[in-house]
Amino acid sequence: MRSHYCGELNLSHNGQEVTLCGWVHRRRDHGGVIFLDMRDREGTAQVVIDPDTEEAFALADKARSEYVLKITGLVRPRPEGTVNTNMSTGEIEVLGKQVEVLNEAQTPPFQIEGYTDVGEDVRLKHRFIDLRRPEMQEKLILRSKVTSAVRSFMDGEGFLDVETPVLTRATPEGARDYLVPSRTHEGKFFALPQSPQLFKQLLMVSGFDRYYQIVKCFRDEDLRADRQPEFTQIDIETSFMDEAGVMGITEDMVKKVFKQVRDIELGEFPHMPYAEAMSRYGSDKPDLRIPLELVDVADLMASVEFKVFKGPAEDPKGRVAALKVPGGAELSRKQIDDYTKFVSIYGAKGLAWIKVNEIENGANGLQSPIIKFLGDDVTMQIMERLDAKNGDIVFFGADKEKVVNEALGALRCKLGEDLNLYTKEWAPLWVVDFPMFEETDEGKLTALHHPFTAPTCTAEELAANPATALSRAYDMVINGYEVGGGSVRIHREEMQQAVFNVLDIEEEEQREKFGFLLDALKYGAPPHAGLAFGLDRLVMLICGTDNIREVIAFPKTQSAACVLTQAPGEVDGTQLRDLNIRIRRDPASATSH
Amino acid sequence: MRSHYCGELNLSHNGQEVTLCGWVHRRRDHGGVIFLDMRDREGTAQVVIDPDTEEAFALADKARSEYVLKITGLVRPRPEGTVNTNMSTGEIEVLGKQVEVLNEAQTPPFQIEGYTDVGEDVRLKHRFIDLRRPEMQEKLILRSKVTSAVRSFMDGEGFLDVETPVLTRATPEGARDYLVPSRTHEGKFFALPQSPQLFKQLLMVSGFDRYYQIVKCFRDEDLRADRQPEFTQIDIETSFMDEAGVMGITEDMVKKVFKQVRDIELGEFPHMPYAEAMSRYGSDKPDLRIPLELVDVADLMASVEFKVFKGPAEDPKGRVAALKVPGGAELSRKQIDDYTKFVSIYGAKGLAWIKVNEIENGANGLQSPIIKFLGDDVTMQIMERLDAKNGDIVFFGADKEKVVNEALGALRCKLGEDLNLYTKEWAPLWVVDFPMFEETDEGKLTALHHPFTAPTCTAEELAANPATALSRAYDMVINGYEVGGGSVRIHREEMQQAVFNVLDIEEEEQREKFGFLLDALKYGAPPHAGLAFGLDRLVMLICGTDNIREVIAFPKTQSAACVLTQAPGEVDGTQLRDLNIRIRRDPASATSH
Repeated sequence: MRSHYCGELNLSHNGQEVTLCGWVHRRRDHGGVIFLDMRDREGTAQVVIDPDTEEAFALADKARSEYVLKITGLVRPRPEGTVNTNMSTGEIEVLGKQVEVLNEAQTPPFQIEGYTDVGEDVRLKHRFIDLRRPEMQEKLILRSKVTSAVRSFMDGEGFLDVETPVLTRATPEGARDYLVPSRTHEGKFFALPQSPQLFKQLLMVSGFDRYYQIVKCFRDEDLRADRQPEFTQIDIETSFMDEAGVMGITEDMVKKVFKQVRDIELGEFPHMPYAEAMSRYGSDKPDLRIPLELVDVADLMASVEFKVFKGPAEDPKGRVAALKVPGGAELSRKQIDDYTKFVSIYGAKGLAWIKVNEIENGANGLQSPIIKFLGDDVTMQIMERLDAKNGDIVFFGADKEKVVNEALGALRCKLGEDLNLYTKEWAPLWVVDFPMFEETDEGKLTALHHPFTAPTCTAEELAANPATALSRAYDMVINGYEVGGGSVRIHREEMQQAVFNVLDIEEEEQREKFGFLLDALKYGAPPHAGLAFGLDRLVMLICGTDNIREVIAFPKTQSAACVLTQAPGEVDGTQLRDLNIRIRRDPASATSH
Repeated sequence: MRSHYCGELNLSHNGQEVTLCGWVHRRRDHGGVIFLDMRDREGTAQVVIDPDTEEAFALADKARSEYVLKITGLVRPRPEGTVNTNMSTGEIEVLGKQVEVLNEAQTPPFQIEGYTDVGEDVRLKHRFIDLRRPEMQEKLILRSKVTSAVRSFMDGEGFLDVETPVLTRATPEGARDYLVPSRTHEGKFFALPQSPQLFKQLLMVSGFDRYYQIVKCFRDEDLRADRQPEFTQIDIETSFMDEAGVMGITEDMVKKVFKQVRDIELGEFPHMPYAEAMSRYGSDKPDLRIPLELVDVADLMASVEFKVFKGPAEDPKGRVAALKVPGGAELSRKQIDDYTKFVSIYGAKGLAWIKVNEIENGANGLQSPIIKFLGDDVTMQIMERLDAKNGDIVFFGADKEKVVNEALGALRCKLGEDLNLYTKEWAPLWVVDFPMFEETDEGKLTALHHPFTAPTCTAEELAANPATALSRAYDMVINGYEVGGGSVRIHREEMQQAVFNVLDIEEEEQREKFGFLLDALKYGAPPHAGLAFGLDRLVMLICGTDNIREVIAFPKTQSAACVLTQAPGEVDGTQLRDLNIRIRRDPASATSH
């Protein structure tokens, strides 16, 4: 119906007759003339309608915000002094000759134009209006460009797009599955996949060599800000390629996508061992835009009497670390109290600090409630190790290693943001050399990634020293977000057996859960490795938002519901009977709701 | 690890050292030398290993079928007389110098090489081995090429790839939904989408203008050969485009895909009204490769006494039609009996026929049990109308119109296949001018497509004559398969209301089921139209198979199960409690299983 998009018009169309289709973004009457800003996906253009064109004028006069119009008219330069340099179409206007009202519109529940401060719930309830906002259009258009760029890269590298099932078995990621009752197999259930992990490994066993898929995955977990019950993965697997190969090709992909869709140069991604990331940043996904580092001071603290420090310093599972923040000496007591509350979320029992104001006067030039417990000597040794300068503040964490890492790691990021300490806009890296296993609170070993991850050692070495074994896993981290992760997989049966032994998974459970993969390993499985990116999170980063719902057309709320469609909804008894299930209405649970 | 794929080697690599990674496809010992056909995704190459290279020889000697090997060696021309012109690599061989066994393999449960006549259940159970068969690799590689071609076409035409939810509400297609119990909203359920219909319409209301998605959809129906519980749709929607626009752009897409992936020229797609398709072919998805047509003879049959013909001929809802099959006079009584059984599947009570052998002798030159009931005059008038020639057979259908169309329509296709009557390889067309509604057995009207399809008439005309109203729907048919279908949608509230009134859907039900779409129509919905292709079926056609499971990596069986992963499976009580459901174990249903 249209000849041009509104947003593509410029002086090069001067003198042309054009037909636009779109929405009335804004309407003004000025000097007897009607000005309509017409909006479509590509932008807005100003249409002027003169009373001379009677019929068009009468129709335009009735048009309100969000009416859908088709307008034919002549492109001309805007009169001197009315050029709008903020708009791509700001040098021209369209003199409207014919107007057709394609549809009317009620007054929308909130403004389309500019940022509106309505609650997210209202926006989600009227998502079809919210998505008209140019910011939202831009984000979803960017997302489409990202997937298109990913696909053309992968196609170019010989990866095959193969679809894996959505109605499937529980997968080994270990989060809670969404279940789908089977109608034809009474009392049995499909699970929605948490990832296509086992299927992509099977595709390698089948010889497809290079696989990718942009695919929905599902986790029925309580939601955090950057999580959704259904999320999208860029899922990749290759055969006959080692970790260097997979990291190389996927790093290349991410770099090309950033360059292509936003002209961002990410540069080389440094590789950092997990142990180093935890030690220096307290995190396995360090935000390297922030130039703050954790420094170990346990050796110095071991000599003090103060139990808060001495205890963890002497505990083999403890850690005592300091975090120096340049310029932090200006933090108020109130601010420090807030940070103390903040670290308590991560289990820290307090937040000791030393302000550095006149270091030239030794310990006397420092302000802190804890110097008296440390003694001047230890205090100054710490200052020296940190190379503390006037104006700095030093925070301390002393607890179990896990607590210190999480608390100071999070504090580091919060300070980076609050004090705007970022030294660069983009900080990508690979974290490598992860441990194979982590210890649970009950002292059992669980797989840090998943039980199909290959170790760097032999099966015998793994059996002998599982706790210290490293895996051939790798995570891609950008600006403190884990955007992707993967590993070289186990391709030999005896190694898979060794891992199951460490994990104490009995044969019956192995067969039940992963039988078909174990079978596949017997029939000529090639060495293989892969990786999965969280597409939503990657797009979120590229868009510069930290709300994952902004990059999803129809997201769920934090309670895993869709306020637009009112999903989940009631279903009738016949449907449930067909599926051989009933709703459980326990008296106990009934009272709790 | 590799330098080349096995399948890409040819004389241009002569003299190069190459490293291949792949599977032992075949192994022969010949004259003290080991010949290995090494296989990977791209094909096979012959590797020769000489006893001189002791270590390599010893390893190759242990290698069995499906072992995974890495082999480094020198490409050389095959000796005179041993060139294999059936293989792309048949002019060369690789003289193996180094062999590494990457993995061993048990003897597979069936042969990879060539066609093996094992049951589909065994193939599906060991799908990771079945998918190694070059035929299966080709099909999935072709599928990947099709999706890639579709995407690059759509991207090029400015369509945005937008993802719609999988966990959603029941959609209006009317088949049975797969349900997903919600953990956080007790007693409520998500439905898996039968199509993203409502979401794509909302995206148009939001102004995205051109949307596409290659997306999984779900129907919990009893399966036919070309159906799967989860299937993939190429889903398309556009704004400000009419049916001609949508048909034009999607026809263009399909033509380019066929051309690109298989060098097939489909030519222009004729447009055929639904009424004509039913009348001439008894089907709304006619297979135009077959030059047989149904011819109405009710006017002639109305005059005979024979009730089998006279009844339907005089019934306004009846039809009497003839189908002339050149060369069919040679069909045996047994074959005719089989066709009689075949049409009975479609409800036909019999299959009358006339063989034409000596038409120059008038009715005496015809063989048929029914001529005596028709009389010579009517018989010869029919022969004349059909332009019957010696060697023909004429079949008759007389019943309710629906039965005749289904029976003779199916018979037409079966005869086309059995007698190989195809006059061309590809016969695409558009079927248009569908009725808006069809009458149920209870005499109520239901939507032939879905209730959002726009009629060709005004709301007033629709209300006055719903039964004869035509819709702005269109189906793409290729070789008798409906590969895609769509329509111009209703974008005005009053028209939507008129359709709901005809369908007798009360306001409460409207709100409950489609409330958010009705809301969307109030706030400036643009004219919009779209279409969805069945990707699996399209790929099936392009591959030349009629088994949809051949073009899906991990399909379900006809009982909607996966024999590879044993999905659906048992789940434990905790999971069900979390989801607030129980398995219904009725004593009644327990006995019936």
